[in-house]
Amino acid sequence: MTQSIAIIGASGYTGAELIRLIATHPSFRITALAANSKAGQPLASVFPHLRHLDLPELVTWEQIDFDQIDLCFCALPHKTSQEVISKLPKTVKIVDLSADFRLRDPEAYKQWYGNDHAAKEMQTEAVYGLTEFYRDDIKGARLVAGTGCNAATGQYILRPLIAGGVIDLDEIILDLQCGVSGAGRSLKENLLHAELSEGTNAYAVGSTHRHLGEFDQEFSALAGREVKIQFTPHLGPFNRGILATAYVRGDAEAINAALRTAYADEPFVEVLPMGETPSTHHVRGSNFVHIGVVADRLPGRVIVVAALDNLCKGSSGQAMQNANLMLGVDETAGLMLAPCFP
Amino acid sequence: MTQSIAIIGASGYTGAELIRLIATHPSFRITALAANSKAGQPLASVFPHLRHLDLPELVTWEQIDFDQIDLCFCALPHKTSQEVISKLPKTVKIVDLSADFRLRDPEAYKQWYGNDHAAKEMQTEAVYGLTEFYRDDIKGARLVAGTGCNAATGQYILRPLIAGGVIDLDEIILDLQCGVSGAGRSLKENLLHAELSEGTNAYAVGSTHRHLGEFDQEFSALAGREVKIQFTPHLGPFNRGILATAYVRGDAEAINAALRTAYADEPFVEVLPMGETPSTHHVRGSNFVHIGVVADRLPGRVIVVAALDNLCKGSSGQAMQNANLMLGVDETAGLMLAPCFP
Amino acid sequence: MTQSIAIIGASGYTGAELIRLIATHPSFRITALAANSKAGQPLASVFPHLRHLDLPELVTWEQIDFDQIDLCFCALPHKTSQEVISKLPKTVKIVDLSADFRLRDPEAYKQWYGNDHAAKEMQTEAVYGLTEFYRDDIKGARLVAGTGCNAATGQYILRPLIAGGVIDLDEIILDLQCGVSGAGRSLKENLLHAELSEGTNAYAVGSTHRHLGEFDQEFSALAGREVKIQFTPHLGPFNRGILATAYVRGDAEAINAALRTAYADEPFVEVLPMGETPSTHHVRGSNFVHIGVVADRLPGRVIVVAALDNLCKGSSGQAMQNANLMLGVDETAGLMLAPCFP
Amino acid sequence: MTQSIAIIGASGYTGAELIRLIATHPSFRITALAANSKAGQPLASVFPHLRHLDLPELVTWEQIDFDQIDLCFCALPHKTSQEVISKLPKTVKIVDLSADFRLRDPEAYKQWYGNDHAAKEMQTEAVYGLTEFYRDDIKGARLVAGTGCNAATGQYILRPLIAGGVIDLDEIILDLQCGVSGAGRSLKENLLHAELSEGTNAYAVGSTHRHLGEFDQEFSALAGREVKIQFTPHLGPFNRGILATAYVRGDAEAINAALRTAYADEPFVEVLPMGETPSTHHVRGSNFVHIGVVADRLPGRVIVVAALDNLCKGSSGQAMQNANLMLGVDETAGLMLAPCFP
Repeated sequence: MTQSIAIIGASGYTGAELIRLIATHPSFRITALAANSKAGQPLASVFPHLRHLDLPELVTWEQIDFDQIDLCFCALPHKTSQEVISKLPKTVKIVDLSADFRLRDPEAYKQWYGNDHAAKEMQTEAVYGLTEFYRDDIKGARLVAGTGCNAATGQYILRPLIAGGVIDLDEIILDLQCGVSGAGRSLKENLLHAELSEGTNAYAVGSTHRHLGEFDQEFSALAGREVKIQFTPHLGPFNRGILATAYVRGDAEAINAALRTAYADEPFVEVLPMGETPSTHHVRGSNFVHIGVVADRLPGRVIVVAALDNLCKGSSGQAMQNANLMLGVDETAGLMLAPCFP
Repeated sequence: MTQSIAIIGASGYTGAELIRLIATHPSFRITALAANSKAGQPLASVFPHLRHLDLPELVTWEQIDFDQIDLCFCALPHKTSQEVISKLPKTVKIVDLSADFRLRDPEAYKQWYGNDHAAKEMQTEAVYGLTEFYRDDIKGARLVAGTGCNAATGQYILRPLIAGGVIDLDEIILDLQCGVSGAGRSLKENLLHAELSEGTNAYAVGSTHRHLGEFDQEFSALAGREVKIQFTPHLGPFNRGILATAYVRGDAEAINAALRTAYADEPFVEVLPMGETPSTHHVRGSNFVHIGVVADRLPGRVIVVAALDNLCKGSSGQAMQNANLMLGVDETAGLMLAPCFP
Repeated sequence: MTQSIAIIGASGYTGAELIRLIATHPSFRITALAANSKAGQPLASVFPHLRHLDLPELVTWEQIDFDQIDLCFCALPHKTSQEVISKLPKTVKIVDLSADFRLRDPEAYKQWYGNDHAAKEMQTEAVYGLTEFYRDDIKGARLVAGTGCNAATGQYILRPLIAGGVIDLDEIILDLQCGVSGAGRSLKENLLHAELSEGTNAYAVGSTHRHLGEFDQEFSALAGREVKIQFTPHLGPFNRGILATAYVRGDAEAINAALRTAYADEPFVEVLPMGETPSTHHVRGSNFVHIGVVADRLPGRVIVVAALDNLCKGSSGQAMQNANLMLGVDETAGLMLAPCFP
Repeated sequence: MTQSIAIIGASGYTGAELIRLIATHPSFRITALAANSKAGQPLASVFPHLRHLDLPELVTWEQIDFDQIDLCFCALPHKTSQEVISKLPKTVKIVDLSADFRLRDPEAYKQWYGNDHAAKEMQTEAVYGLTEFYRDDIKGARLVAGTGCNAATGQYILRPLIAGGVIDLDEIILDLQCGVSGAGRSLKENLLHAELSEGTNAYAVGSTHRHLGEFDQEFSALAGREVKIQFTPHLGPFNRGILATAYVRGDAEAINAALRTAYADEPFVEVLPMGETPSTHHVRGSNFVHIGVVADRLPGRVIVVAALDNLCKGSSGQAMQNANLMLGVDETAGLMLAPCFP
């Protein structure tokens, strides 16, 4: 049996990553590709690396016949996404990769994103797409909200620790490096090779990054009390990958055990031997997460490091994993690609 | 039906690439992994990016029970490879990724590699592994010699032009840029990030690169006369990819037609629309070759550019494609991974 | 004695490079910095790496009092440059870094750049700024036209060979790799880190690059007959540097001798020992050119490779060297910075 | 007046950086270059980027006539350095760039470096080379111990805050990214371009990095009590640069004021406007430090970020600055090179 897939926003990096993954999926078939600004073009003119695939020409999303679509990935910029999704037939299953349905509270949304949400009722309908922790809800969902890529990485570290009660909730610092594809295919000066290669910098310093909205929502819900972490992202001179270094307080063995237990049966999350930490090099191009725990020389302080590929496990791979669940196929279908190293 | 696969030389980049590809192959199963210097270690300690795979521990090649092996990939350094392969059971099918069996003539081998060949009789037994041009021979071969990665790239451009009689055989210049993984995982000063990133240089200038032995052998056989090209490789600050820019003399339309005809039914070779040229970015991590033809402003001069991934189509992907043929499975099995961009 | 310097177009990379060089110049002082789109801002907001310098605020070029200026560098985009320069007082000395005054023939200009030149009379007034070959003219010039960065690199190889009559004028191929800063600080998709890093591609294939206008003009004038070369640039994943690989016909010793003779007394051009070739890594951030000659295995064929830093020797360093000559100070003043390696 | 300079360990990156800086120093002249493993070679064969300089041939350090030397830079690996320095004439002024004389306490040295110190009496003689804080001692010193590059970066942030009593001494976390040249020109697998580019990882996790010895010594001395910080370095895919992100507790305005006061008259330390943070891109190749302060969203928490070039300000530039002081020349001589961007 074959599932018919549409992608809206096919001309961005997460759109391309979805197509890359679907290319080896055993049962998904791409029926429609939309990119309004490039409608009428073959995909190969936008993404030459996909030229070997037999794909439909780019159309506008309004041209898609959704009666023929089993599931639609929406890979649009935030704000545009909510406007488009609110106009799609209410029967079509949707995995949204934007930020638009991650926050359930309209006030929180407005606080972090600045505008009134255009589809408030759908904010509560949407299931938060962190697969390992919302699996059952995702299976029955019509609309799944893909998580932020930084937000996913931090949660892979912190959710089991918060849920397990093994860390001090008031002393959580998340320091993170993100590759440049996380910023999308946008024409900004700081994303030019000449500006970005051979160096690094912090951004959104002072815990002002929008993904904190997700951390606040998820960690507070999990803890049953307000949890606010410190979070500093850095922009690194690499295309794919997030490395998150978390500074927490607790017992290293207990922390390690909490992670091992949480991920014991997970196909995509690897907890490294105690004392080892991961590298983004070793998850590049894949849907895997590597996590490692180290006790600090200071008693009661622990460092936990996680690595994943922001475009794959942090975005399009997660979306595929969720789509698999929503359509009742094997959760790992199309996602067992080994990392591309070197 | 499942084929049982061994890899000798599993701790190098081409070994790792074979494992990456076999990870999604529908019927190949890795039964033995040998790396004599690392025997006893789990593969994850050598290549952490493959830690999610359920793989046998590294052994010495002498420990492999070849009765259980349908096909053995040999990814050893040249010279070592001939010594090991000459000692393997004569019944086991072998795809060698080293330079050792590419040249059929012992004198040519000695000229380019400096030593007397340790298994001269196998030099003539071995089939040259450029799949698209030796497909029938490969199907029946016991020993296939993987081509040089630069040599493969140049031949994808030049073989159809020489065979088609559409270029001047005395006026062929091949200028090429190769990514650093082509040099393997060897500890050399010029391969350090600090020495290599953010710049480029030519090497083996003056047509002294060993892959010229392959060009001489193959092009002369094809033309029925001696053909000697000029060839200058450059080392670029990227890990994967070869871009070959060939300067030839002939009619651009005829050249384009010769390439289109040669590759019309090939699953992995894409000839771009006339006037377009490829980028290594768009084949990274894949088994695809992109080729494009442009007429120069000078009448009768033509530039043909080809791009492939040296580790995949230039080495391990080619080896897999040949193994598929040798074992009677679909030639493209495990090889349809889309390029990893960005 | 101090010379008062203005820079128009200070918010681009060549403008920044001029300021970097002037920072250690013994007698140049920056009196005015213009960047019309950023007028009113401190330079540090545009180029934070120059924040330690005590510099005037950015103004529009119309605000500059040229009576106080000894020399003005004009680092504007081409076409804009001719419009601005034609309106500047005819008394001010100018070094233009754009393409606007490189071609003396209005027809050639229109052929390569597409528009009618807005200051045709100044095209012939301008002296071509390849310092080593136009030194005497530059000393007395009012307007010097900086060369193309690729054009400079090719000419360092080819001028002495053409002038010396040691190569076949009809068989010249120039294959070149250029770093991304050569494209300036412009917001183009192919200049994004995510698109450019970890790979390479050719561009302007078929000898269609605008710098061929300079090659045609200069080489034909030098040879006293029409000389047309083939030229293929490639865009490499590095910020600074041009590596040019020239394929020529002649005697390697004679070619080497011609280069040694031409550059024997030049402070910035190093001819490597015969058989060695340069790397862009080793000229990065400096005003030096490294050139090396190798005989090909094919008799009568020779490869000459040159490396320079496109932003420095290929543009702003050259402009400084010319300004030094025009203002009667030591030609090497401010330019003896050693390359920045690694 | 000219000072005669020797460099021992001239074949490593810090040696090359010293030579690069001395190349534009107004009064330093290199009289001897030692690199025992390369003795007899011209420096250009080891560092082709310095080939334009007129330098003495490499010798062994035993061949140097120290009577003729005003100051000797010692850029050897640690442990080797103490052995060599202990044998040099006690009259020669020395700036050591290794780790060997940074720790005054033999026990602390042994704890962090594993071996008994071979020149214990010189440990106490040596002045710690963080120029801005030991300036007067350095002026009169015979032996100055260059600081660790990471240690320098952290101290530029933390010393004024500890000395000023504006932060909680028990709550200091230093998260840091270091470029690969910090590891030197050593042949290690993880320093290969293929292993390092396009990704990042933490190392020495758990506050086990040797530079903690310096932090412990310096911060405790400054505070008059034991101060132990948490410190996690990361290895980034860039050649030059350290970005340190410090998480501290205190009042942001007070912290900012402490830094401004401390560095008000410093030629090389720039405190950015409150709320801005630096980038390593903007200090590359220079002796400058950029520091910026941001208040976190959590009251009482502050992030301070510093950037410097590990090879220059973190090592060889610092050494030069100290040498200037020791020899009585202008402290900034040869060090005002503007950063090389892009």
